Parts: sequence; C-alpha cells; structure tokens
Amino acid sequence: MANKKKIGRCYLIGAGPGDLGLVTLRAKQCIEQAEIIVYDYLCNPEMLNWAPESAEIIYAGKKTGEHTLKQDEINALLVEKTGAGKQVVRLKGGDPFLFGRGAEEAEALARAGLAFEIVPGVTSAIAVPAYAGIPVTHRGKNSHVTFFTGHEDPSKEESTIDFRALAKLGGTQVMLMGVERMESIAREMINHGVRPDLPVALVRWGTTGRQRTLIGDLQNIAHTHATAGWGLE
Amino acid sequence: MANKKKIGRCYLIGAGPGDLGLVTLRAKQCIEQAEIIVYDYLCNPEMLNWAPESAEIIYAGKKTGEHTLKQDEINALLVEKTGAGKQVVRLKGGDPFLFGRGAEEAEALARAGLAFEIVPGVTSAIAVPAYAGIPVTHRGKNSHVTFFTGHEDPSKEESTIDFRALAKLGGTQVMLMGVERMESIAREMINHGVRPDLPVALVRWGTTGRQRTLIGDLQNIAHTHATAGWGLE
Repeated sequence: MANKKKIGRCYLIGAGPGDLGLVTLRAKQCIEQAEIIVYDYLCNPEMLNWAPESAEIIYAGKKTGEHTLKQDEINALLVEKTGAGKQVVRLKGGDPFLFGRGAEEAEALARAGLAFEIVPGVTSAIAVPAYAGIPVTHRGKNSHVTFFTGHEDPSKEESTIDFRALAKLGGTQVMLMGVERMESIAREMINHGVRPDLPVALVRWGTTGRQRTLIGDLQNIAHTHATAGWGLE
Repeated sequence: MANKKKIGRCYLIGAGPGDLGLVTLRAKQCIEQAEIIVYDYLCNPEMLNWAPESAEIIYAGKKTGEHTLKQDEINALLVEKTGAGKQVVRLKGGDPFLFGRGAEEAEALARAGLAFEIVPGVTSAIAVPAYAGIPVTHRGKNSHVTFFTGHEDPSKEESTIDFRALAKLGGTQVMLMGVERMESIAREMINHGVRPDLPVALVRWGTTGRQRTLIGDLQNIAHTHATAGWGLE
C-alpha cells in the first residue's frame, strides 16, 4: 500500500456569479478537500477561505487585458498537477460550460488520460438579470432566450453570430463580456432589423454588493454607459 | 414586542437539476429555516430532509398531465402564506427564471405588496448536457446558445418560436420539456432549413443516478426515442 500511486483528479467547477450563497454544495466540498486550487479573476476570492491551509492556491487571471496565464498554460498546469496525483480544483466564474472555456480544459485532461469531473455552477447569464429583477423567460411572453458572447475568439475571421437571424429570432437576448464592443454590436443589431427602442439593461458586478444596473434602449445604451463612468470592468 | 406582527417572506428558489450536490448554499440555508415549503415534481425530494420538523410541506405537482395545483392556485397559496407572516420556501426544479414560471409567482407577490427573494439555481439546461459530456458552448466552435421550450403556453395561438430564424442562427440549441412534441418540432426544424443530420442528444433524469442519454440526429431522434421505450417522462 505504501507504494500505491495516488490518483489525481481535476474538478472543473462553476463558482457561480459572485454571491457566495450561490456556490453549490459540491463546489464547497471540493474546495474543502483540494490540494491545488487554480482560480479566475471572476471568482469571488472569499471562497478560497474554505480551502485547507495546506492547499496550493494559484491565480490564473483572466481580467481583460491581463491574462496572468494563457489558456494553453492553464491547460498544461491542470494536466501537470492532476498527472502528479493531486486533487485539483479549477474554479471558474459562473458555469464552466457557458462561455467558461471549461470544454478546452476538459479536452486537455481527456487527451492526457486523466480523471476529471464537471461541477456545473449557477450561470451569471441567468442569475445576474434575476438579481436586477429581470426574468430571462416569462411564460406567455416569450419561449426562448439566447446567450451570446460579445468577446469572440479574436483569431476567428468573422463573427459566427448571424445578427440578422438573431434579430429575426427575437426573444430575450443576453450578451456576456460585451462591454468593449457594445457600441458596434448595438449598431449591428439595429442595422439588421432589431428595433432601436428595444429595452436594454446593463448590469455589472451582478449578485454582489457592488451590483449596478443601467437602463436604456438599444440605440442609447452605449452612450448611457459612456457617460456613466463605469469604465470597462 | 409581543404584538409585533411577523413579516413574511417568500424565497423563490432554484433547486437545481436533481443532483443534491448542485443545490446552492443559500437554497439549503433557506430550507433549513423554512416554515412552509411548496415544492415541484422536478425537485429532488431528498432536500426536504433539511427542513425543520415543524415545517409544513406542500406538494404542488407539475408532472406532465398531473397538475396537483394549477399555477393560479400556487400563486394564491404563496401570497396567502407569505401574507400570514410565514417564511415560505418555493422550491422549483432548475432555475426559477429559465422556464420555471418564477416570474409569474414573483409578480403575484409583488402585486400583493409582499417581500420576496429570488435564489437562482443551477439550470438543467446547462448542467444536464454537461453531465452527458456536452458543453453548450466551445470557444472557437460557437459563440451562442439558445434555450427554447417544447411546451409552450397552449393558450397561445401560434408558436412564438420562429424556427426559420432559429435554423439560420445555428449555434447550440437546447429544447426543454419537448419530448411530447419532439417529432413535430424536429420536422419543423428540418422544413425550415436545419440539416437533417444535425447531431442530437436526448437526456432524461439528467444529473441523477437514473440519467440516460440517447444519441442520434435530427431526422431519426424521434424514432430512436419511440423505440427506446422511455415513455414520456
């Protein structure tokens, strides 16, 4: 038994939108038993207090323009630590599979033949509008909701989002990580047929004590944001 | 102080997709302090064990074709109990605001001038595909995902879902509660331009020990389902 090699395992965990109460029981349990924790900028760092004192805690960054570790480096780190037999917790804001790049990390672990587990989280895409009083669906009013990223992979030659189809589809539309391109995306949506007076809410630091909401419509939200002094965070 | 009227509060809580580990810390805390719990068919009933012995537990149903309480009756019940000064926990499968009819309950409480709190949950729309190994987004492959219901309000004259626009939009598409209308919806999608060999996964009892997945494509999934003997649950 003394020579039995420890089997590593990586937990790809959705840490929820910010409010500590929205962390799942499984996520907390995994943090409490972690040997290594790799966490993102969008996670509420208070949950790191649940980790054992002996845990090694690694910050992976991901604040706009400040990628402390690149995605390839994060993948390599998870493979290295898990391959060394560690219990590795990878904490990601929101849910790991909704614009969380969890799929890439899972693929890297799978390619290396390592054990991993996905722990879905409360996605900010639904919880943040909820905390601002906005249900993403409402029976009798709409039957669908689309989530899209305003921050596509810059190596793509063109957007894979068909804004004309999106305009035609209607329903609730939630854009994540789009503050930098909000003006051009709003213009593109209007050019493709979305009505300019479509109500828009812009929420930042959603579900936390710092939450702020701006209300406007598609044609004025970028200007409203620019004059609100929020910056790009 | 003895005559001070107790102030009621209703917690509209997403109970997650089924796995008890995917319940949030806040949801568990609310259950532990509840005086009244109103829960749905889609909730994992094991979490009722967290309630105080003194709590009154009411089953609201919602199994297909077996609505123990109608939505209006549920709204009235929440208003009555909250208005009577109780701490009322309303447990809903998944998230209350993604096809959860939480918006209607929140409106009823707001109209009655009562205090309520939304506690978002892990939505089955993301977690169930995740447990079946399917990320709903993947950077470099798609930039959007649409969730739609296969079970629209029957009082609507026609579907509010524009299947032609949905076909054109592409991306990942997740249908919830659609097993009864799967064949007609799949046919409609193909008629509107979605490729018949689009890969489709059908998952039931997602995230629980009973989870089962069927794999096929858009043109054969209804037949695959019909011959698998799953029934309509």
